[in-house]
Parts: sequence; C-alpha cells; structure tokens
Amino acid sequence: MSIRIFVTGGTFDKEFNEINGELFFKETNLYELLELGRSQLDVKIETLMMIDSLKMSSDDRNYIINKCKNEKTDRIIITHGTDTMINTAKYVADQNLDKTIVFTGAMIPIDFGSSDGLFNLGSAMGFVQSLSSGVYIAMNGRYFEYDKVQKNIKTGIFESL
Amino acid sequence: MSIRIFVTGGTFDKEFNEINGELFFKETNLYELLELGRSQLDVKIETLMMIDSLKMSSDDRNYIINKCKNEKTDRIIITHGTDTMINTAKYVADQNLDKTIVFTGAMIPIDFGSSDGLFNLGSAMGFVQSLSSGVYIAMNGRYFEYDKVQKNIKTGIFESL
Amino acid sequence: MSIRIFVTGGTFDKEFNEINGELFFKETNLYELLELGRSQLDVKIETLMMIDSLKMSSDDRNYIINKCKNEKTDRIIITHGTDTMINTAKYVADQNLDKTIVFTGAMIPIDFGSSDGLFNLGSAMGFVQSLSSGVYIAMNGRYFEYDKVQKNIKTGIFESL
Amino acid sequence: MSIRIFVTGGTFDKEFNEINGELFFKETNLYELLELGRSQLDVKIETLMMIDSLKMSSDDRNYIINKCKNEKTDRIIITHGTDTMINTAKYVADQNLDKTIVFTGAMIPIDFGSSDGLFNLGSAMGFVQSLSSGVYIAMNGRYFEYDKVQKNIKTGIFESL
Repeated sequence: MSIRIFVTGGTFDKEFNEINGELFFKETNLYELLELGRSQLDVKIETLMMIDSLKMSSDDRNYIINKCKNEKTDRIIITHGTDTMINTAKYVADQNLDKTIVFTGAMIPIDFGSSDGLFNLGSAMGFVQSLSSGVYIAMNGRYFEYDKVQKNIKTGIFESL
Repeated sequence: MSIRIFVTGGTFDKEFNEINGELFFKETNLYELLELGRSQLDVKIETLMMIDSLKMSSDDRNYIINKCKNEKTDRIIITHGTDTMINTAKYVADQNLDKTIVFTGAMIPIDFGSSDGLFNLGSAMGFVQSLSSGVYIAMNGRYFEYDKVQKNIKTGIFESL
Repeated sequence: MSIRIFVTGGTFDKEFNEINGELFFKETNLYELLELGRSQLDVKIETLMMIDSLKMSSDDRNYIINKCKNEKTDRIIITHGTDTMINTAKYVADQNLDKTIVFTGAMIPIDFGSSDGLFNLGSAMGFVQSLSSGVYIAMNGRYFEYDKVQKNIKTGIFESL
Repeated sequence: MSIRIFVTGGTFDKEFNEINGELFFKETNLYELLELGRSQLDVKIETLMMIDSLKMSSDDRNYIINKCKNEKTDRIIITHGTDTMINTAKYVADQNLDKTIVFTGAMIPIDFGSSDGLFNLGSAMGFVQSLSSGVYIAMNGRYFEYDKVQKNIKTGIFESL
C-alpha cells in the first residue's frame, strides 16, 4: 500500500534556533520519525510549505488542494498546524476527491521529549490505511470526520461536534 | 469508542535494572505513552502478564484467549513480544470472536530514546478503531491479517506471506 | 560539600506552551536534572527569578548580588541566560566575595532531546567543587574566569578573550 | 587545555540488540555526547576495550595502565563499568603518575532517556580540568579520591569511606 505525506509545517516541525532563542522551521522531521518507527510502507514525503497554520493563506490552501487532486496515490496524510487544520480540511473536502485524506499534527514539537507527534503520526498511518474515502482529522488517538470536529482552544483537545 | 488494551510484556515494556545491569519487567509504560499521546479515547489497560514471549506457555495463551472472549469491548489491542506474537494471534483467531483484535509490540524498549513503541502503539490505535472484525498484527507501520505474515528473524521486520 | 544553586531562568528552563505555541517559563527543571544525574551532593536550589537574560534589570542583578553575599555556602552555581551571563558575572565579581561562583546555562532548553543543559550542569557541578574562589563561566565543557571570556554571537560559543 | 578520554565499556556504552533482545557493545557514544554538550575542548577519544567491568582481566588493567603512562596529555578521563571501577583506579594509582585521572561511568546506559551518563561525563570534564594530580572517581555529582570510596552494592551509590 502506497501512502503520500504532504508536509505543511505547524507545531509538529518547529525547531529551536539556538542563536536567537526562537522557534522556527528548518526541515521536516518526518523522515526521522518513519525511520524511528521502522516503517516498511511505501511512503513518499513532500514538503509543500513550512508555515504556522495561522499564517496559511487561501493561496496556500489552493496549493494543498491541487496537490491532493493531482496525487495518484489515493491515501494521503497531511501534517498541519492544529489552529486551522479543520479549516483546511473543509477546503479539501469541498473537492469531493475519491481519496482517504488524514490531517494530523502535534501539540508539542517533535524535537521535545514530551511530544505527541510520533504517536499522532502512527495513528494517522493506521487510519489512512483502513478508513474509506473521506477527509479526516487524526488527533488525541481519535479520528473525526472533517465536519464533525472542533478544537477546544482552552485545552487544545479535539472534540466531536 | 471504547478500547481495551491487554499487556503481556515483551520488549515493549523491558526496563533496565541499574543494580545488576540486566533488563527486566517492572510495570507497563502504556499509561505514560497514552498520556504522552494526549489520548482522549476511553481506553482501559489491564496487565495480564509481564513476560518474554519466548517464555509464553499454553496456559498463558489460554489466559489471553479467555480474557479476549470475556471482554465486553469489541476493540482490543494486545501488546506482546515480537518473537511469538504471530503464534498467539493464531490461537486467538481460532476462537472466531466477533471482535477487532490488534497485536503490537516493539523492537526497542520504550525506555530507549530510539524506541519504535510509541509509533507502533499509535498505529495500533488507528487500526483497532477502523478495521473490521478479525485478528491483526500491527508492526512497521503496516497491518497484516494474522495468517498472512511472518517475522523475518534476521532483520526483525514483519513481512507479508 | 554543600552547594547552592540559584536559578534565574534563561534558555535552560524554557518550556513549550502547547496552547499558544510559544516558549515560556514555568518551574525550573533543576530538581529533575539532579535526580536524573543521581546527585548525592547536599544541593539546595532556590529560584530567584525566571526571565530571559536580555530582560534582566539592574534591580534583578542587585537581587542576585545580595543573594550571593548573604549565602552561607561558599560554592554557588547560578543558571542564567547566555546572552548577558557575562555581564551579570562581572557585577557579582565586583563584590569580591570569597566564594566559588559558577555561572552556567544552555543553548537549547532542557526539555528538548538535543539540549546541552545536563552536560553543562554536570560540568558546573565539577567546577564549583574544585575551583578556588572566584567568578567563572562554565559553558561548552570549559570554564573561563568572568573577565576572560566572550560569547560569539554568531556561533553561540563561549571563547577566551 | 587538552583532555584524553579512554573508553573501556561498562553500562555507559551498552546498547540494545533488537534482533536478540540483549544488551551489547557496539561503538562508544562519547562522540555524540560531546557534540550534544557542544564541547569546545581539545578532547581525543580512544576506545581501549568494550567490556563489562566484571569481566576485566589483569591483562586488560595492565593495558589501561600502559595507556595512561604513555599518554602525553596529563588530564585523562576513563569511562568504566561501575562494578570494578574502584579496583582499576587503585591499579592505576599504584603507578604514581603525575597526571589527573578521573574515572566515570553510568548506572543507566546513555541510550536510555533516564541515563545519568551525560551528567556524569559533564562532571568528569569539570573535575579533570580543575583537580590536581591524582586518581579520582566521579559519580553522583561528587568526586572521591580512589582510596576513599566504596560502591554501595545495594543502592548503586558511591560513598565516602
């Protein structure tokens, strides 16, 4: 089974700049995570952008939509900042693509010892291989259909609508 | 959705005894891992045993089978040593239970920085929620039906039969 | 041998706020680090402040000076942001206290897997027990007298003057 | 200041063999640890052997003695299993070399998240640069002269005699 991962940035891939002390984006950590998980799947990773999801423009979202449309693999994971993940999922869902598309992310950057990123990636890998066509959010060990979920901005937890 | 996790030991839960320098079993690390993953699922963990899977007896396997039979939740994850994981899966499958049962484990104990355990647990969580009834192995990011998989003992990788 | 550790913040103790995605100060991680190192020394930790060293005022520095003056233990470690660590060390040195005072910090917060904090703390513990009275900087595995060191702001490395 | 590190194995450098599930020695992790600590010292690492200290023979100890004798740098760290670290230190001390020689090790392998190795290495780096000639044990944040220390075999802690 082939899987495509599109990387868009978000907390997931934030790193620490030791010169100015700020968080920033360098390169995605997805390759290292799949190696750590000893993944043996046919996974192709492509970095579409590396941005905070609060800064994602409609141009950015159109770019993501086009990549999903033109992708030959029908199982796609998109890593994305959690703040606007559900928004982007709705845009993608509007295209009615006959594909299984799973958005995931992290509350803590994966360079931290306490990150939820590896767990979330694992669950997204499970969901993308076994759910039927549709657009989903995979967070907190759960999956949600894109239009039946909200992020609780006080707790950071994704909840059913 | 409710999930039951049965813990049986295996590399997953091996810890380091700093007095005698040997690996041993203390308590399962599953609780910490679900907390790390910010899991919001209704998961109940029960430790059935804490043993190397090479030392698992038929009594042990019968105990696992009975726990699966009597379990009211129909979505079960079993953590298990990788050496005889497939054997135990076959025993369980022979019961023809109408449940989704996913075996998972780790090649490296989760107390090591390089462990695949958190990724495997995440993927097992994904598979157990979305696969139909049956007995499966979740390793290396993939899932296998219990009778279509072998462990390559040279590489440690689970492969399709 | 008794050691006093004064905590002032800095990169060392930065944590990740998973709600707003920013770095912030909560409580010091020094207790956990000494436990991790299985330290058996008589160490007392006191948090004086939790701030970025770029925001340290002369009031803050006077407070640190007074704590050093009034401290009965003559071996003191001060954790401090690296940007103005040398400045504060000079203020403290101007007091000509008959104590061994070692400043240390980190380039990467200790909550990151790639942090230099535990190594730096270990080296500061070594230096504070074995150097004669004076004010020192312990970074990069080295120690420097407070007036013979500069931080290279391009590389983040502490160098001899 | 130049420092020589001689590696002899011990818990410090134990790794996990994911095929047979046992701990074993591969290559030393000292290079990675010094990089993690952003060490800027002139340190040369040489692996003399990779063994459990309980299996160290008198031939092995003579080899260590000769390496210490012939070493031009007069500041030496020796990583060593904790079980017989004090024995080897006595052998080395009998040579009355005019050098500062610091033995250190770890209770937990450095590949574990809970290892004390990086802290111990940091403290050994501090002690070796600032103590006068002699043979020392650096463990638990402390240093001991080689003939004034014992390892408490119940707790694993190094204590003053």
